[in-house]
Amino acid sequence: MIVVLKHGTPDDKRDQLIEWIKGQGLDVHMSIGKNQTILGMVGDTGSIDKDLIACLDIVDSVKTVTDPFKLCNRKFHPAPSVVNVSGVPIGAGNFAMIAGPCSVESEEQIIEVAKAVKAAGANLLRGGAFKPRTSPYDFQGLKADGLELLKIARKETGLPIVSEVMGAEQLPLFEDIDMIQIGARNMQNFNLLREIGKLNKPILLKRGLSNTLKELLMSAEYIMAGGNEQVVLCERGIRTFSDYTRNTLDLAAVPMLHKLTHLPVIVDPSHSTGMSDLVCPMAVAAAACGADGLMIEVHNDPMHALCDGAQSLKPEDYADVARKVFAIRNIMTQPAAI
Amino acid sequence: MIVVLKHGTPDDKRDQLIEWIKGQGLDVHMSIGKNQTILGMVGDTGSIDKDLIACLDIVDSVKTVTDPFKLCNRKFHPAPSVVNVSGVPIGAGNFAMIAGPCSVESEEQIIEVAKAVKAAGANLLRGGAFKPRTSPYDFQGLKADGLELLKIARKETGLPIVSEVMGAEQLPLFEDIDMIQIGARNMQNFNLLREIGKLNKPILLKRGLSNTLKELLMSAEYIMAGGNEQVVLCERGIRTFSDYTRNTLDLAAVPMLHKLTHLPVIVDPSHSTGMSDLVCPMAVAAAACGADGLMIEVHNDPMHALCDGAQSLKPEDYADVARKVFAIRNIMTQPAAI
Amino acid sequence: MIVVLKHGTPDDKRDQLIEWIKGQGLDVHMSIGKNQTILGMVGDTGSIDKDLIACLDIVDSVKTVTDPFKLCNRKFHPAPSVVNVSGVPIGAGNFAMIAGPCSVESEEQIIEVAKAVKAAGANLLRGGAFKPRTSPYDFQGLKADGLELLKIARKETGLPIVSEVMGAEQLPLFEDIDMIQIGARNMQNFNLLREIGKLNKPILLKRGLSNTLKELLMSAEYIMAGGNEQVVLCERGIRTFSDYTRNTLDLAAVPMLHKLTHLPVIVDPSHSTGMSDLVCPMAVAAAACGADGLMIEVHNDPMHALCDGAQSLKPEDYADVARKVFAIRNIMTQPAAI
Amino acid sequence: MIVVLKHGTPDDKRDQLIEWIKGQGLDVHMSIGKNQTILGMVGDTGSIDKDLIACLDIVDSVKTVTDPFKLCNRKFHPAPSVVNVSGVPIGAGNFAMIAGPCSVESEEQIIEVAKAVKAAGANLLRGGAFKPRTSPYDFQGLKADGLELLKIARKETGLPIVSEVMGAEQLPLFEDIDMIQIGARNMQNFNLLREIGKLNKPILLKRGLSNTLKELLMSAEYIMAGGNEQVVLCERGIRTFSDYTRNTLDLAAVPMLHKLTHLPVIVDPSHSTGMSDLVCPMAVAAAACGADGLMIEVHNDPMHALCDGAQSLKPEDYADVARKVFAIRNIMTQPAAI
Repeated sequence: MIVVLKHGTPDDKRDQLIEWIKGQGLDVHMSIGKNQTILGMVGDTGSIDKDLIACLDIVDSVKTVTDPFKLCNRKFHPAPSVVNVSGVPIGAGNFAMIAGPCSVESEEQIIEVAKAVKAAGANLLRGGAFKPRTSPYDFQGLKADGLELLKIARKETGLPIVSEVMGAEQLPLFEDIDMIQIGARNMQNFNLLREIGKLNKPILLKRGLSNTLKELLMSAEYIMAGGNEQVVLCERGIRTFSDYTRNTLDLAAVPMLHKLTHLPVIVDPSHSTGMSDLVCPMAVAAAACGADGLMIEVHNDPMHALCDGAQSLKPEDYADVARKVFAIRNIMTQPAAI
Repeated sequence: MIVVLKHGTPDDKRDQLIEWIKGQGLDVHMSIGKNQTILGMVGDTGSIDKDLIACLDIVDSVKTVTDPFKLCNRKFHPAPSVVNVSGVPIGAGNFAMIAGPCSVESEEQIIEVAKAVKAAGANLLRGGAFKPRTSPYDFQGLKADGLELLKIARKETGLPIVSEVMGAEQLPLFEDIDMIQIGARNMQNFNLLREIGKLNKPILLKRGLSNTLKELLMSAEYIMAGGNEQVVLCERGIRTFSDYTRNTLDLAAVPMLHKLTHLPVIVDPSHSTGMSDLVCPMAVAAAACGADGLMIEVHNDPMHALCDGAQSLKPEDYADVARKVFAIRNIMTQPAAI
Repeated sequence: MIVVLKHGTPDDKRDQLIEWIKGQGLDVHMSIGKNQTILGMVGDTGSIDKDLIACLDIVDSVKTVTDPFKLCNRKFHPAPSVVNVSGVPIGAGNFAMIAGPCSVESEEQIIEVAKAVKAAGANLLRGGAFKPRTSPYDFQGLKADGLELLKIARKETGLPIVSEVMGAEQLPLFEDIDMIQIGARNMQNFNLLREIGKLNKPILLKRGLSNTLKELLMSAEYIMAGGNEQVVLCERGIRTFSDYTRNTLDLAAVPMLHKLTHLPVIVDPSHSTGMSDLVCPMAVAAAACGADGLMIEVHNDPMHALCDGAQSLKPEDYADVARKVFAIRNIMTQPAAI
Repeated sequence: MIVVLKHGTPDDKRDQLIEWIKGQGLDVHMSIGKNQTILGMVGDTGSIDKDLIACLDIVDSVKTVTDPFKLCNRKFHPAPSVVNVSGVPIGAGNFAMIAGPCSVESEEQIIEVAKAVKAAGANLLRGGAFKPRTSPYDFQGLKADGLELLKIARKETGLPIVSEVMGAEQLPLFEDIDMIQIGARNMQNFNLLREIGKLNKPILLKRGLSNTLKELLMSAEYIMAGGNEQVVLCERGIRTFSDYTRNTLDLAAVPMLHKLTHLPVIVDPSHSTGMSDLVCPMAVAAAACGADGLMIEVHNDPMHALCDGAQSLKPEDYADVARKVFAIRNIMTQPAAI
């Protein structure tokens, strides 16, 4: 951490601050320039409140120089991590094709969709049982029954299953679910993250609508600090002023996260755009820029879907997306082909 | 809900959609113009997925015409509500002065601060026991012990107490807390909102960093739909591109919320700005534009606060803010004085 | 335009509004529901102020149902347009590879870069002569001399040239420039747009940092309404809360704009990210999702570039990007290959 | 400027960078910590490209420590400036009440409004002659004729006049206008700023919809660097995800700008909210938090206003706003009254 003092700071005030910093167990390097004096703190600055120092009378500004995330930081773990979901690896060249309906609605529906997406190349089945809905009056999911239907579809197809948990009290129901999803609105539900950190199970952590990459990594850090290092990150669009699509898909987050962390990064082109005809272009774009997987909503009858039908693909459209994605992956991972 | 059809839509496709809408239990009014045909749905459109219809081939756009929030809607409840917190009324001209430290740190600290803010005119004491922190490595609050210290301070001063809950499993500890705060990051923790809705206790619901007013009202609706109508809303700054202050305080939300809902609306000038010298200007501005109260962080020794010291006022500064706020309130509520 | 009246609006007030609307030369369709009355305006509503009506006492809300952009609207011109830049077509399957330095610095530099990007597959040369700089103290470009150097590079390589104009008074200097760029900060410099509309010359119109797609299209409309229909749109990143990259590249704007307009849409991965190692992933992603071209900054010696060196590629890196982009284009445009 | 090197940077690469920095005419202070080495540049770093250095292989991050704005910086000019508009001072306790119609429409209209706002306490008259409109098909203002009508209203009332210029070529028409407004969309029209800097005339510079305070100050710096130091800043709302009001009024910008600059800061509550019933609450809030003035739209017949009628007040409503604003100013500037 670096403290820039205001021009004209009296020496005694400066020394008082230096004493206070030393009192926190840190060393101080002082650099006196013509227009300003800079104090560099050396040691573990984790417990220092940057904003607090920034508010002192004599301080012009404060700059941090170390990342607050450690376990997920690529600096300390240069090789990309692989997260194994009941036999399906994600990351380091292994591509996740997660597909399925927004909500599990019936045994027929989930089995039909599961077979269709498997035939198209999906290797993981998603399905919502507990649904986060903005309105208390909207359909909230089949809950425990939905999870049971997912397991039946897994048995039928062999696809490991992914579903979203909305609160720590639901976790016992997820014991036999292969991968647990933390939704965007719960990305900073720290109590839930802490509980998730105690499990030995792959986690799909979605970026919040207004969260920075650093905050996403800090939430991964919460889970990893608890002992569970099987975290896959998911970019799913951020909230901006732009109003044509539901959210703004921040695809540059994919290569940027790959620079910052060793964790796998997948993309959800369905929720980010909210429009089924934008799913394919965003899916291939994500594959092109290096994503480690895709999560796509597929429904057998979008006109009657109980939620988020507008962004769901029909199985035949998903097959087309998958074909294009695999072709792109082929090109990008076999440089000789170029 | 109004559906604008694309120019040139064949009659049979249009009629098919009309049949589908009627199949959902709604009536349809059709208006055929020169360039476009418009379908108006009449009846309870709450279960219709707007985005789904917007994605149909023949549909140009869809417009909603009713608010999705009902219990908190001012249209159906024109008089402003009053929420009574253990004898302290908020709303309809009753002003809440909530003050106290970001975190409860010790008995001495909380009693000292409680006495100081009471002397300055505060009528409710706040203090964090469970702290939502972005980093798992930061101080997370004194937890249950912190709540006990708050009760001691209440006994000493008579001020009802307000503290933040972070998960439903903590609720039993809050039985004897006068008002429960839902933090910005939990505004859409729907499981928690549902549990809160079952209580008979005043709730302070903070707006999420990237949530619209409609979403804030839908979260209030979650609580009220459960039977608990004692909800106070709190504007605490939103996340924008602007980087000088921590968040952007959206003060126009105060009069706008007063148009939309009968619930009281208070303002938190501490967290929204993150800078102690902006607290006073934003507090008086909030009072001027009609807020029903203020929540302000006050600390007896900001240099050693364990969290968010940068935005906390010293007791003497709080007294100055309170004086100005009361003077403004005086002017604004006694039109004869102008 | 559709007007939703407030519940309980007296008939005489409603009729007064209807009279007013008719006085503006429009017809009115009225639809009376149980909870609300809806008025539909039929005719040319272009001159009606939506916000004004929305502020009337009896009005609950107002919805518009027609696009304000006409000449660039795909509804009225379904085939994609091709813009021809001195023999290089852009759009409808023709891909623009625009490359060159941020600023023209010297004859040697611009010729060296031009030859290198041409060898790598570029078909248009860019170079800044007039530079929009946030600070009055920064390098502002070589101005007229820079344009002359671009012409020399064009003569050497045969590549048509693209350069940015910053004000109408500079237009005479651009007479012999093949394509004129309107920068993001001038996207709503309506006076400049009007002057540009009088020219018979291809225009590259960049999206402003905080402009919606509708606003971008309205700015294209300004140019086209003047008679110049040779407009190419450019997505170059928008301003959001996200702070890791300079701006947030909104790639979903590419397929979305293709739905809304017949004009070609290219992408600038250099300015949007501000980081040279994100240019390649974003360039291939743009090609994958259907962009009609790319504008990429290339410099022969980034360490000494006078501006924006951080986002510029070295020629050998550009050649690598171009190879990957062409491979992706190949896959996406030859469905048989998939 | 401070450069944090990556852990494990070889000494020769570090020394190479140090040499390069010295080659730019700067001194370097090196601080070697356990985990990182920090280089501090000493001297005028104005010409160093921060982003360029940040992209070097060996560099972890770069921090700037000096403000890029100088002439408007409060550090070098601690007393607040007063801008004198033909006898009406703004700043340092002098409050500007700028009012008038969005567009000048007729002699009758502008004189009637001018008399009404003067009677209510306005000391400056505004009126749009050249109108920046998003659509080329909307009313663009009376242009030169509008400016003439403003002069007539000035003669009738004695109020100095303020009007917006949209391009440098219009400046000759503004010779006899008392204060020239630069609109939000032209805040970074650097060519126009440079021309404005050559005048000896008060300038009202509005903040752009997505511009940071630093960028606003840099635009003021453009004008001041040209020799014209009579700049008044205007906060008029920023673009965010929030969709209930047209823009989000960033009132904390007022006290923040007062910390950063000596220039006066006024607020426009009309454009920022776009709704006439939010103008009064935002106007009094602005007065409470220390603004040096207000610019408010007033119209004698909002239902027929040719533009932006929705946000305009009727004269009697303006009189009410003015009364409340003066009462607030009274309280805030006479501490003894509190």
